[in-house]
Amino acid sequence: MATYKSDTLKHKLYSIIFEAETPAGKAFDIMLLLLIIASVVVVSLESVVSLRRDYLPLFQMLEWIFTILFTIEYILRIYSSERPLRYVFSFFGIIDFLAIIPTYLSLFVLGSQYLLVIRVFRLLRIARVFRLTSFVNEGQVLSKALRASMTKITVFLGVVLMMVIVVGALMYVIEGRESGYTSIPKSIYWAIVTLTTVGFGDITPVTPLGQLLASCLMIMGYGIIAVPTGIVSVELANAERLNTTTRVCPNCYKEGHSLTANFCDNCGYELHREEAVGSNI
Amino acid sequence: MATYKSDTLKHKLYSIIFEAETPAGKAFDIMLLLLIIASVVVVSLESVVSLRRDYLPLFQMLEWIFTILFTIEYILRIYSSERPLRYVFSFFGIIDFLAIIPTYLSLFVLGSQYLLVIRVFRLLRIARVFRLTSFVNEGQVLSKALRASMTKITVFLGVVLMMVIVVGALMYVIEGRESGYTSIPKSIYWAIVTLTTVGFGDITPVTPLGQLLASCLMIMGYGIIAVPTGIVSVELANAERLNTTTRVCPNCYKEGHSLTANFCDNCGYELHREEAVGSNI
Amino acid sequence: MATYKSDTLKHKLYSIIFEAETPAGKAFDIMLLLLIIASVVVVSLESVVSLRRDYLPLFQMLEWIFTILFTIEYILRIYSSERPLRYVFSFFGIIDFLAIIPTYLSLFVLGSQYLLVIRVFRLLRIARVFRLTSFVNEGQVLSKALRASMTKITVFLGVVLMMVIVVGALMYVIEGRESGYTSIPKSIYWAIVTLTTVGFGDITPVTPLGQLLASCLMIMGYGIIAVPTGIVSVELANAERLNTTTRVCPNCYKEGHSLTANFCDNCGYELHREEAVGSNI
Amino acid sequence: MATYKSDTLKHKLYSIIFEAETPAGKAFDIMLLLLIIASVVVVSLESVVSLRRDYLPLFQMLEWIFTILFTIEYILRIYSSERPLRYVFSFFGIIDFLAIIPTYLSLFVLGSQYLLVIRVFRLLRIARVFRLTSFVNEGQVLSKALRASMTKITVFLGVVLMMVIVVGALMYVIEGRESGYTSIPKSIYWAIVTLTTVGFGDITPVTPLGQLLASCLMIMGYGIIAVPTGIVSVELANAERLNTTTRVCPNCYKEGHSLTANFCDNCGYELHREEAVGSNI
Repeated sequence: MATYKSDTLKHKLYSIIFEAETPAGKAFDIMLLLLIIASVVVVSLESVVSLRRDYLPLFQMLEWIFTILFTIEYILRIYSSERPLRYVFSFFGIIDFLAIIPTYLSLFVLGSQYLLVIRVFRLLRIARVFRLTSFVNEGQVLSKALRASMTKITVFLGVVLMMVIVVGALMYVIEGRESGYTSIPKSIYWAIVTLTTVGFGDITPVTPLGQLLASCLMIMGYGIIAVPTGIVSVELANAERLNTTTRVCPNCYKEGHSLTANFCDNCGYELHREEAVGSNI
Repeated sequence: MATYKSDTLKHKLYSIIFEAETPAGKAFDIMLLLLIIASVVVVSLESVVSLRRDYLPLFQMLEWIFTILFTIEYILRIYSSERPLRYVFSFFGIIDFLAIIPTYLSLFVLGSQYLLVIRVFRLLRIARVFRLTSFVNEGQVLSKALRASMTKITVFLGVVLMMVIVVGALMYVIEGRESGYTSIPKSIYWAIVTLTTVGFGDITPVTPLGQLLASCLMIMGYGIIAVPTGIVSVELANAERLNTTTRVCPNCYKEGHSLTANFCDNCGYELHREEAVGSNI
Repeated sequence: MATYKSDTLKHKLYSIIFEAETPAGKAFDIMLLLLIIASVVVVSLESVVSLRRDYLPLFQMLEWIFTILFTIEYILRIYSSERPLRYVFSFFGIIDFLAIIPTYLSLFVLGSQYLLVIRVFRLLRIARVFRLTSFVNEGQVLSKALRASMTKITVFLGVVLMMVIVVGALMYVIEGRESGYTSIPKSIYWAIVTLTTVGFGDITPVTPLGQLLASCLMIMGYGIIAVPTGIVSVELANAERLNTTTRVCPNCYKEGHSLTANFCDNCGYELHREEAVGSNI
Repeated sequence: MATYKSDTLKHKLYSIIFEAETPAGKAFDIMLLLLIIASVVVVSLESVVSLRRDYLPLFQMLEWIFTILFTIEYILRIYSSERPLRYVFSFFGIIDFLAIIPTYLSLFVLGSQYLLVIRVFRLLRIARVFRLTSFVNEGQVLSKALRASMTKITVFLGVVLMMVIVVGALMYVIEGRESGYTSIPKSIYWAIVTLTTVGFGDITPVTPLGQLLASCLMIMGYGIIAVPTGIVSVELANAERLNTTTRVCPNCYKEGHSLTANFCDNCGYELHREEAVGSNI
């Protein structure tokens, strides 16, 4: 109740910068969205030789304008936060910091300005602008399924890593330096290229024995891609089922409310969202 | 009741051109099917240098014949429609228009006649000829599942796009112009080629650090292909389940009739197919 | 009851050649298995230049020996069949015929002996030797699931085919002859190579617009591979469920007998296999 | 009860080397983990030409130190085992043996020391160190699903193998030696590269007919990857369901306890874990 004037300003700033409920907050987020996209496009175009030759001063000026704007925004975000340190070390706080630092670094380290494309990750927070609740909800289902699959996928990747190390070493011994397998690390790189079915073709086996081993590796890679897919399918089916069926209206007992529902769509009774969400995720 | 003569003609034309119930309508559709295939084959063959040299006049004549026939058909379709504007701006109306315009354009713009292959999409409407109801039905199940997956897949593709932009910029900084990573857009193209496990090999990393980052990207691409697959599997299972279980016989209340069933397989009561299909899709 | 002598001989031959229940039938099948593998290995080795130079007479002699043995077997199969014509035009009858004809053709057409590798398909019938009922059963589940998926996969492949034709033509217009897209058919071949994520790299886009279109095609190919996978997963789950749960013993009502079971494993009552199988497949 | 002194020593050694319950056993396993990783890194780095030139004596010394330590460990493992022969011929016993023998072999056979990377498989036993029960449990679910899929996947791979042999021979006949299809074995290698969607591009079809056949093979490979994926998904869903539902509390009969639960989460009755696990896996 007893808020200071600066606190009111802070609160107003907070609602503009961090939220998108008010018209001002929404306008701010849309402007930010456009700035981020423009800035990533500028960085990308700057790297094209022909454009760089002709428009370098323009690109550099734009880059500094974007960086200064983002720096001001960053400072305002810290200022308006209730707990500034918590913001600074949050996921988005770190992204926001990394999104401005390369321009300053480019004064000392040549080429570091290209790292500015990390700004693209700032778009993640913009989902909120369009009130994309269904997108956010689907994202939650996806990330819940991925989290649930994490242990199984780690076990899977561990075994895959051991396999490519051993096959890489075998190919190094079989094919030798002449065929491009110049060292075990490079052969492991080749084994990864092959097992993942990417197949650049920069290094390829030429001896019959090497081609036989490569064939085995390819068939293995073709077969075991089924494993992560199966894992994610099963976990996604689980996450979906939980997401759509476990919320029950305590008034009329209608089942299957979505995680984002605030009221029962049958009788209009208000649903206690936090509890329901908490029990699911 | 009080229909003019021209209206009767319109109606007759409509049933021939748009439907395939009458013998005349069926014959029309089969002829159209053959014309479309022939026209796409002619366009494709015209692009082969050796054939072009020898048969160019023949190809051009055929192209004009096909185009004039399709133009007449297009005009008749507009004429016989109840609501011509609605047809013109429908999906098939636009396809029909795009399928004739390149030939006229080729008088002014060289090479635009090759865009005639868009005619191949006109085949989509021909399914009807063979009364391929089961095909149409399966297609509906598929597209329902895909529509239901759309939000999740958009979220997924958004994250993938951010990833390839950042990895592309990193590779540009790491590998530099010598290895073929001549600009950030081109590096992003490489990152897409790699993440999707296509792996042309026109650009490949040569520095150890670049190969390490490429390995991470490949393993990531190999792992996350599981995500869209899992999404579609789950949605398809849902669509299938709905497809086979929501039709209820209004007489004996037995559930789970297939979409193509005309009678209840329990009591023989005639099922109202259109309604049932309509309520599902 | 009143069987002629030759009929008894025919019957004996039939049980040796077509069945694997008797010791003689089993020995025959194992010998046949070894002959088929040996014959495919000989054909493959003959094609290796260095081996061909040194051992051509040996290879040719072995080839003729194998062919004559298989020809005798083919004639005996026809002779011992109850309905010879039905055998001749059955799947295995055609394979058996194609497995001997190339050697005779090689007298007139050079190189046709390499088609002898079609013999490898004869191995399909050998599963029976090892009484691999579980393999045969799993094979039935798989092929049932694939048959059930066929309509959906045909719809899917039809749409894919239209897509590669249109993208192929677009790339031909965009990239032109200089980049290797020398004709629309070749561009369609490239589009298939890209969409299926094979990515040979023999033809690659070089213009920025071409690389953009290729990127879209790759992401599409990466995403839509989910469709056949989802289809097969769902059908396989259906086939599995039917396979293990719908057969009920009419005596003790125990559920879940496998499709190949002849007796109830609970009470020993004989199950009517044909009916049960018929109702499932 | 009447254990000799050496038996006590054996038992103590056993608990240190084979188990990770005591502090000494844990310390031993962590040290072993670090040694294995260090040894694989040294072998890999030795193969890099520039490093090999400068540090060969260092690498060779480290290699001998690791080998001697692992040899001592191997002898102690045999000594402390209750049934030494059973250990020697167990999976890990063979890996442990193969992990030391290449260094001794390298005295006679040049280059065999690179096979030392097989040591990486020794990491499999280290999971125990971190009491990674959830990892081990997930690994068991995965391997149970893979074992259950084995018959179906064998049938699938058998058919795939027949297909690549026939397509390989056809491509050899169609394309001939000029395009790189120098022999049937090499063409089979190409068919595997193509069917698995790896697509190195070291050999590619150049004739229209060859490109048509390659297109069919690619579309087939793109489609049938759905089969192993579908198989594993279904089996994994089965394994998951069994994993979470077949454990029943013998006191209150509540179902669905996880494999790692020690007490019933309904009535608190202690669950006999080994039996339950044993009955599931």
